[in-house]
Amino acid sequence: MSNDKQFVKEITPQGEDFSRWYIDVIKKADLMSYSPVRGCIVFKPDGYEIWENIQRELDSRFKETGHRNAYFPLFIPESFFQKEKEHVEGFNPELPWVTEAGGEKLEERLAIRPTSETMIGHMYSEWINSYRDLPLLINQWANVVRWEKRTQPFLRTSEFLWQEGHTAHEDEQDARRETMQMLEVYRDFAENFLAIPVIVGQKTPSEKFAGAVDTYSIEAMMKDGKAVQAGTSHYLGTNFAVAFDIKFLDRENQHQFAHTTSWGVSTRLIGALIMVHGDDRGLALPPKVAPTQVVMIPIGPPKTREQVISRVDELYAQLKQAGVRVKVDDRADQSPGWKFNEYEMRGVPIRVELGPRDMENGQVVLVSRVTGEKKVVAQANFVEEVQNLLAEIHQQMYDKAKTFRDEHFVAVDTLDEFKTFLEGKRGFALAGWCGSNACESQVKEETGATSRNIPFQPEVTKSTCLVCGDAAKHTVVFGRSY
Amino acid sequence: MSNDKQFVKEITPQGEDFSRWYIDVIKKADLMSYSPVRGCIVFKPDGYEIWENIQRELDSRFKETGHRNAYFPLFIPESFFQKEKEHVEGFNPELPWVTEAGGEKLEERLAIRPTSETMIGHMYSEWINSYRDLPLLINQWANVVRWEKRTQPFLRTSEFLWQEGHTAHEDEQDARRETMQMLEVYRDFAENFLAIPVIVGQKTPSEKFAGAVDTYSIEAMMKDGKAVQAGTSHYLGTNFAVAFDIKFLDRENQHQFAHTTSWGVSTRLIGALIMVHGDDRGLALPPKVAPTQVVMIPIGPPKTREQVISRVDELYAQLKQAGVRVKVDDRADQSPGWKFNEYEMRGVPIRVELGPRDMENGQVVLVSRVTGEKKVVAQANFVEEVQNLLAEIHQQMYDKAKTFRDEHFVAVDTLDEFKTFLEGKRGFALAGWCGSNACESQVKEETGATSRNIPFQPEVTKSTCLVCGDAAKHTVVFGRSY
Repeated sequence: MSNDKQFVKEITPQGEDFSRWYIDVIKKADLMSYSPVRGCIVFKPDGYEIWENIQRELDSRFKETGHRNAYFPLFIPESFFQKEKEHVEGFNPELPWVTEAGGEKLEERLAIRPTSETMIGHMYSEWINSYRDLPLLINQWANVVRWEKRTQPFLRTSEFLWQEGHTAHEDEQDARRETMQMLEVYRDFAENFLAIPVIVGQKTPSEKFAGAVDTYSIEAMMKDGKAVQAGTSHYLGTNFAVAFDIKFLDRENQHQFAHTTSWGVSTRLIGALIMVHGDDRGLALPPKVAPTQVVMIPIGPPKTREQVISRVDELYAQLKQAGVRVKVDDRADQSPGWKFNEYEMRGVPIRVELGPRDMENGQVVLVSRVTGEKKVVAQANFVEEVQNLLAEIHQQMYDKAKTFRDEHFVAVDTLDEFKTFLEGKRGFALAGWCGSNACESQVKEETGATSRNIPFQPEVTKSTCLVCGDAAKHTVVFGRSY
Repeated sequence: MSNDKQFVKEITPQGEDFSRWYIDVIKKADLMSYSPVRGCIVFKPDGYEIWENIQRELDSRFKETGHRNAYFPLFIPESFFQKEKEHVEGFNPELPWVTEAGGEKLEERLAIRPTSETMIGHMYSEWINSYRDLPLLINQWANVVRWEKRTQPFLRTSEFLWQEGHTAHEDEQDARRETMQMLEVYRDFAENFLAIPVIVGQKTPSEKFAGAVDTYSIEAMMKDGKAVQAGTSHYLGTNFAVAFDIKFLDRENQHQFAHTTSWGVSTRLIGALIMVHGDDRGLALPPKVAPTQVVMIPIGPPKTREQVISRVDELYAQLKQAGVRVKVDDRADQSPGWKFNEYEMRGVPIRVELGPRDMENGQVVLVSRVTGEKKVVAQANFVEEVQNLLAEIHQQMYDKAKTFRDEHFVAVDTLDEFKTFLEGKRGFALAGWCGSNACESQVKEETGATSRNIPFQPEVTKSTCLVCGDAAKHTVVFGRSY
């Protein structure tokens, strides 16, 4: 499985060409391969395992908040898309269509799902009859397809993997509570599991989900200053309930339309992880999501090799026992130096070195991927020291990403000011916005930046629109994005 | 989520109409809904959770045997199917085709994967260069589509969920070892996790996977005497390696084609579970796969209610702590009797009853779903008693299914004998077979039964072909199947 890697001798430095750096890293770290189908990638084991860790963690958080998983069909009849006007306009250009199956032309074309509000809306209309059936709290782990013109591995691919939560509620208040709860689940997950600081806020009308009343997002800054929308949560009002007739008898025995929500994150989180934490040496994976948290490398001359490996194995067993994801690389045909580089490139948070002198002194060396610092610790405290360092690394990675974002985040008063900022430096700008589509479009045309969201807790608030100078309705985060 | 259920007042007895019984049970237990897309079902939470438990267990068994997960594209270019002749003949009639996407007609049609040997073969040819890259041991959890004419929930649906393992090896010996290893993983999983006894053997040439050299299967008997193929493992020889050019430099620096395998189980296992263990009262789920293993129901008059519930909660916490999947149903608006029926119908292995008299005596009542027996045990030994009973129930369910199979399994010498057997009773027959397609076809035409497999350990061996009377090459299991 090393073929793809052979094309990447060295990783292009981030400062030279960030896009090349990104592709070099994901190739060299063996996370993916391009597939023969346009815009579709293969998630190789080292890439897919990151997704498995994301899945496991999010799934348990969804279940803790009362959701259950289900699975709905991949195919969506064409007529379903016609039922919600904004939805069809938003997704129609990106749909692949199945027109033939089983040797026959289909009477009605079937879309491959780009998202499942329509299919799930249809099913919910069958399942929901009474307020007793509410709230209905379901999540689906699935593949979805959006036929994108420009694709980029993990960040934007024609087929991708995601989860989509779909819930139905008795009233607006409960649906909005759910929308906010899931947004907070995402924020907490991004910051405390992926070590990615995010800006939490509401999308402007032009950037909201096709068919939603309100869309909320968490936005992360990559090391090239561009944004990745890392998760969204939508309050759909009764739009899909009306379109699909999701009605119930309320507590007063009156028919009501349900209020629905949807929320999702996708495999683009893998791309965000790489671009937030990676550096010129390669990947850097936050400890909680890293498939391998610790790699142990025995060092020293052949004559002490066996003895050293035997001690490494003992320490390995202790870590394993404590639930740490640890590997030993005791291959004799690769030098320690080669291994150090290899696991740094692969982003393993901690390297453990043990040689004959460490044996004598009852110590062991821990090296942090993120700071490069060596720490000599007593073997007697090995497990505790590793666990502490893992927690420390998480915090350091979060802080580092936060500092980077702060350094690339300005408040501006005018469009010109924003343009000047973007010429010198990449990043986000906070600015006042009057609320008109025209002003928002002008920012996009002149800078390539879009409104990321209207943050709940902006660092500063601005009182005039950066474009027209009228009174600002909102303070908005603008940035170029993936 | 109770709407579907309302159409099922009573479960049709198995003896009256087995197919009706099956549909009644899965509707009433809320496992699935029909979808608006032909042949596709919705896996509702109570059905999907069974699949999640199957996934978790199998996934850990695959990882223990050295496999890693990856994800390959849903779409397969039409030209890929042309490369392996038997494969295209086997799957072409069942493929759905994407012909348009993103508003344009595609230059090459894309099939929705029915299985991924072709796509994975293509990728492996890029990834594998040297014997050092082998064995390559990958599994994929995915949705697949086969446009079936006749569908049946879980057992045969147009879209279904499955896992497909795909491995590549240096030589035939290692690939065959893998094929057998995974077959054994499936056997052990079926018998020791799902409590389903299976017949392990090799498929006849007419029944093997399209493109395989040899196909092996585990076959289970449903309560109507029909077979479900519960898992398959294929030795593919170099067929796909030649078609997709999966070549490597061997230890003597010579180019060789890799030997590949594939193996899979699907959501049809849910159907098998229901049809092997269910009865006229409804579902019966083996403890290891049951989403809820124990339901606790407080009983007695209102005046002791609070006290009883508080004790139930304590015992609940103990079970939960011990890792048992347990629920309490303390709703006041449903009678204990209604609850007893409800959880029996849903197949929960153990019901726990606790009332005021049990409180006084420091005891608690355990009721087994499978035997209906009540067991009064000391509260002091509660957790241990529950764990023992769960283990006992697993064994009882396995034994019961095995006894049923034995009682519906005969050895026959002639086709007439088999026909007579099928008139009186449903089930399988062991019979000699000369090895000719003609004789195998004749059995199918005259009885509707197909060869299930050539068992590795037949109860008896037969020396003459049941059709032509010539010397038997194999002793074969014949049966009607889903």
